[in-house]
Amino acid sequence: AQKTRIAVTPGDGIGPEVVAEAVHCLEALRKRHNLPMEWTRFPWPSHAWHEENGESMPADALDQLKHYDAILLGALGDPGPVDDPDRYLLPDSISLAPLLDMRKGFDQWVCERPARLLPGARQYLADERAKDIDMLVIRENSEGEYVSQGGRLRKGSPDEVATQMEVFTRRATDRIIRYGFEQARLRAAVRAEEGRTRQFRTLDGKTCESQVCIVTKRNALRYWGDMYTEAFEEMAKQYPDVATHHELVDAACMKFVQAPWAFDVVVASNLQGDILTDLAAVLSGGMGVAPSCNLNPDDSGMPSMFEPTHGSAPDIAGQGLADPTAMLFTTARMLEWLGRKDPAVATAGRELFDAVAADLAENAGSRRGTQEIGQAVRERLEKLTRP
Amino acid sequence: AQKTRIAVTPGDGIGPEVVAEAVHCLEALRKRHNLPMEWTRFPWPSHAWHEENGESMPADALDQLKHYDAILLGALGDPGPVDDPDRYLLPDSISLAPLLDMRKGFDQWVCERPARLLPGARQYLADERAKDIDMLVIRENSEGEYVSQGGRLRKGSPDEVATQMEVFTRRATDRIIRYGFEQARLRAAVRAEEGRTRQFRTLDGKTCESQVCIVTKRNALRYWGDMYTEAFEEMAKQYPDVATHHELVDAACMKFVQAPWAFDVVVASNLQGDILTDLAAVLSGGMGVAPSCNLNPDDSGMPSMFEPTHGSAPDIAGQGLADPTAMLFTTARMLEWLGRKDPAVATAGRELFDAVAADLAENAGSRRGTQEIGQAVRERLEKLTRP
Ligand SMILES: CC(C)[C@H](C(=O)O)[C@@H](O)C(=O)O
Ligand SMILES: CC(C)[C@H](C(=O)O)[C@@H](O)C(=O)O
Repeated sequence: AQKTRIAVTPGDGIGPEVVAEAVHCLEALRKRHNLPMEWTRFPWPSHAWHEENGESMPADALDQLKHYDAILLGALGDPGPVDDPDRYLLPDSISLAPLLDMRKGFDQWVCERPARLLPGARQYLADERAKDIDMLVIRENSEGEYVSQGGRLRKGSPDEVATQMEVFTRRATDRIIRYGFEQARLRAAVRAEEGRTRQFRTLDGKTCESQVCIVTKRNALRYWGDMYTEAFEEMAKQYPDVATHHELVDAACMKFVQAPWAFDVVVASNLQGDILTDLAAVLSGGMGVAPSCNLNPDDSGMPSMFEPTHGSAPDIAGQGLADPTAMLFTTARMLEWLGRKDPAVATAGRELFDAVAADLAENAGSRRGTQEIGQAVRERLEKLTRP
Repeated sequence: AQKTRIAVTPGDGIGPEVVAEAVHCLEALRKRHNLPMEWTRFPWPSHAWHEENGESMPADALDQLKHYDAILLGALGDPGPVDDPDRYLLPDSISLAPLLDMRKGFDQWVCERPARLLPGARQYLADERAKDIDMLVIRENSEGEYVSQGGRLRKGSPDEVATQMEVFTRRATDRIIRYGFEQARLRAAVRAEEGRTRQFRTLDGKTCESQVCIVTKRNALRYWGDMYTEAFEEMAKQYPDVATHHELVDAACMKFVQAPWAFDVVVASNLQGDILTDLAAVLSGGMGVAPSCNLNPDDSGMPSMFEPTHGSAPDIAGQGLADPTAMLFTTARMLEWLGRKDPAVATAGRELFDAVAADLAENAGSRRGTQEIGQAVRERLEKLTRP
């Protein structure tokens, strides 16, 4: 197989700390499977570049990254004075820009965040059925509310008007909805293999083994709400085996708290997906465990980007306190993704996932530092029998 | 005192059922306090008007309503075939339009939804501190994401582009933020009276007895995000006694599930407020208990509108199953609001609130029908000693 090349961008705050643990695990897995895999570190703390060029990464950053197979990102957000988490040295609009630039520049049009409450993870909901949560939230990651169009008229005056345009294309809508249906099928197939089943009812009373729920706010934001609805209904015809459902975003957020176990695949716009994935992360036990990825599923050669859902957590940065679990799950997801082309890499990804999950289950509630957790997971990997 | 006039619009689905209970309680309170208060019923089911004029209310609806002191609304949303809750007879965009028309037409620029977990209400969160939740979510109700500007280019074609404009004015931003600070002060004063206190820390280490948290998504929607931030920071100078806080909407939703007891007053835009108030409703025990109101706090003579947070619940409409608790809390809030001009009305509002809260506390978990709950509350009111 060809060499797999990973760009590692530790970023800000706790980023470098959790990334270090991820790299140790990657190293263990590379040795174990003799993987043709290498990585390059891009230590780009936001403020350093800001001093240099007013941005928070090198001017040619995307050019430097574009030939890698994947980007493994720690966290962005300049920590600034650590005694004051509310006041960043750099405004978010600058320090987080690379995140949005990469998503856009590499056309990572899918943001995928699974929600499952794994054993050992913190359960925020009172209902015991929270243990059955098993959903995948798919966020449209390339347009919509995030196009950054708009402006401020009469800026700073009492008569100011600020506008922000949301732009949705049918093409991007179709592709994310299709992706959702494909994932629903895939998940049903995996469940079938594992001997688990779930049942969802369609409007005409049929039962299906998977479901896609589309989220909009079509009763208030009706232009794209209507387009989403039409695109969804048309696409659904090609997937008669998948049950469909429509939720308004406010109701969806409510139901994420009241009965999240009822969802399977959820497809949402960029902003609404941002909100729903954060909620989904909480349902999985919080930011300490929630992975995230920004995928370009096309055969474009452009890298996908893998980052935990959490931010740079400036309040605990530099103290070895950050939980690397989310970063390690994210790394497992990256290997799984890269494994589409190399089965050994996919196996390594599953092993990492299993090791992190086992570590989580065994250490529920214990207070451990970043390195301690990372090391425990690595030791698990090293103890596995020869592949 | 002048006669208080209330327009009662039962609406669709469970609306008429829960409104009937509210009116019985109003009647009991009117007798009890000899209140100069009258109400007029406007039975405007959405589909009836749709057949008549293509809308879901009379063409001169706002003219008919504008001289009332308040509007008490049941719920909107055409139930359609009751065996299929997902398929409405009328699309939401038609049947719910009166809600948005009234908010706009009567400049009800504040939407206020309190969240407290009253004894007897369902607790969705595992953490016991959920019992301490005591926040007020204030939603900007007049502009922003809800201006309904935009369109669909090449509608229905694969090349379609749908746009939706968000429009924010500094004037509306200032007034909602000021309203938030005023409410924070008021709440602190009420707490002080009741011998309760809360403490919030400001950025420079001072402690305050109240807090306003502003919510934006300024790292992605930066035009209005920046304007909101500036308006908030400037307004804060006039309220040095109130602690301030800024949350991004995704983090805010997360924290509403992880630590909602840490919030006091939360101010958010129209759409983000829509989402946060639905979450707040869940924190209060769900749609069965969550009141809501759309206020025009100006001395404009235009009516404010009071509606429960819940919808028309077509799936249970007509069966006497709907919980009228949210509607009764909403009615209490209306009386409190109207009571700004007539202390006897305010007293009636507090009595109603107390009666509903007592009923809720005593009947936790019991399955009772709409009328049974309404009657139990009314009997409580009738048993009160003479005022
Ligand atoms: C940092 C921010 C711009 C980003 C987003 O809104 O997409 C983050 O919240 C996320 O979910 O990855
Ligand atoms: C029905 C809908 C238009 C409305 C809104 O979005 O404002 C509702 O969700 C609400 O919260 O009152």
